[in-house]
Amino acid sequence: MNIEVCFSPQSYPLFHKSDAIVVVIDVLRATSAITTAFFNGVAKMIPVATVEEAQKYKENGFLVAAERNAEIIDGFDLGNSPFGYMNDRVKGKTIAITTTNGTQAINAAKNASKVIVGSFLNQDTVTEYLRSQKKDVLFLCAGWKEKFNLEDTLFAGAVADALVYKYGFDSVCDSTIAAIELYKIAKHDLYGFLANSSHRNRLAKLDLERDIRYCLTPNQCPVLPVMEGKFLVKA
Amino acid sequence: MNIEVCFSPQSYPLFHKSDAIVVVIDVLRATSAITTAFFNGVAKMIPVATVEEAQKYKENGFLVAAERNAEIIDGFDLGNSPFGYMNDRVKGKTIAITTTNGTQAINAAKNASKVIVGSFLNQDTVTEYLRSQKKDVLFLCAGWKEKFNLEDTLFAGAVADALVYKYGFDSVCDSTIAAIELYKIAKHDLYGFLANSSHRNRLAKLDLERDIRYCLTPNQCPVLPVMEGKFLVKA
Repeated sequence: MNIEVCFSPQSYPLFHKSDAIVVVIDVLRATSAITTAFFNGVAKMIPVATVEEAQKYKENGFLVAAERNAEIIDGFDLGNSPFGYMNDRVKGKTIAITTTNGTQAINAAKNASKVIVGSFLNQDTVTEYLRSQKKDVLFLCAGWKEKFNLEDTLFAGAVADALVYKYGFDSVCDSTIAAIELYKIAKHDLYGFLANSSHRNRLAKLDLERDIRYCLTPNQCPVLPVMEGKFLVKA
Repeated sequence: MNIEVCFSPQSYPLFHKSDAIVVVIDVLRATSAITTAFFNGVAKMIPVATVEEAQKYKENGFLVAAERNAEIIDGFDLGNSPFGYMNDRVKGKTIAITTTNGTQAINAAKNASKVIVGSFLNQDTVTEYLRSQKKDVLFLCAGWKEKFNLEDTLFAGAVADALVYKYGFDSVCDSTIAAIELYKIAKHDLYGFLANSSHRNRLAKLDLERDIRYCLTPNQCPVLPVMEGKFLVKA
């Protein structure tokens, strides 16, 4: 049971293993929003890579979430804010979603045998699932436009830390060591540690401090979104 | 004066800025070997990407260094070990060199306006040069076969730490923050911190502990190798 961390969807082909479980991570905010959506009763989600695909789902009567550069695209129903998914109108619905980074990462892993969605909101649920499966794990950080980001790395480190030090998984991967070490520094104050991070500042300028605090608070949504064919569903 | 850290040559195009100084880093061992070579009187080096190119230089009478997967390729004069460059036969010579990761990173940055070579061996020299130039800096880590590695990241963090906290450079880049934080954990015992790292273990299996200890000991070779056209020369 080996663990690797891939810091950018661009690098996914270097890490692909046919039997590994891929954990897609976009803490601020796509995978936090998806986790929140399932916790609030959404039935299915359809991650799509382009706004054009999202538009087609909209024309066919679906609820559609579409975000680019941290803002809802005009004309769509929802964006990347988890708070948008905390209401009755999403309950039981199938929602198509496209985001700047998160859905690109899901798309990058489309040849993986198993893809699950992780965020601090479902940290223990993800950890417990991986522990129970006893397979190789690849954490796939969505990053920001193919670059490394801190918040996704910290979440990878949080889960990897538990898998390695509590549950006997191996890590011979430098990026896993780095993620765990960074998490150890940050874990007592994720919000403070990320004060200077690029995406936290990008969101703070848009007055999204409430979203940030929510996304960095572990275990509020104990659900596990998994890919089944083209759909995300609750495991 | 902004600092960025690029963890893989593959990602260089995302970071390219026409006026930034690029610091190529391959601590174990290409940029440590290059730094050592210039400190020991080598006149010029010609980094080449392929073994075929290296072979042509050999046929034309050059000294040639050729390494793949941490070992000297049969039939060549030198490899990646800094100790190979500590003798009189290299003095005043022009040496062509190809390595698994380091020369690939130099090649990736070929459109940069300025490329310099960094390693712990010339840490203060690199830092002082960057301070004096007052330009944007991009640390380009060679990594291992396009993946993140720890030792190159630690060196980027070491220099970035001084530039940001002593000399007023800016960092809004998450990978720079990560590199600095990792360096802060590791700096009092680089050798111990890297005990579990992938490349250190790869080299240890080849009985290269002496190389590793040497490459992690700062400021033994106060020289600055810089690219000029197709040549590396001493600044």
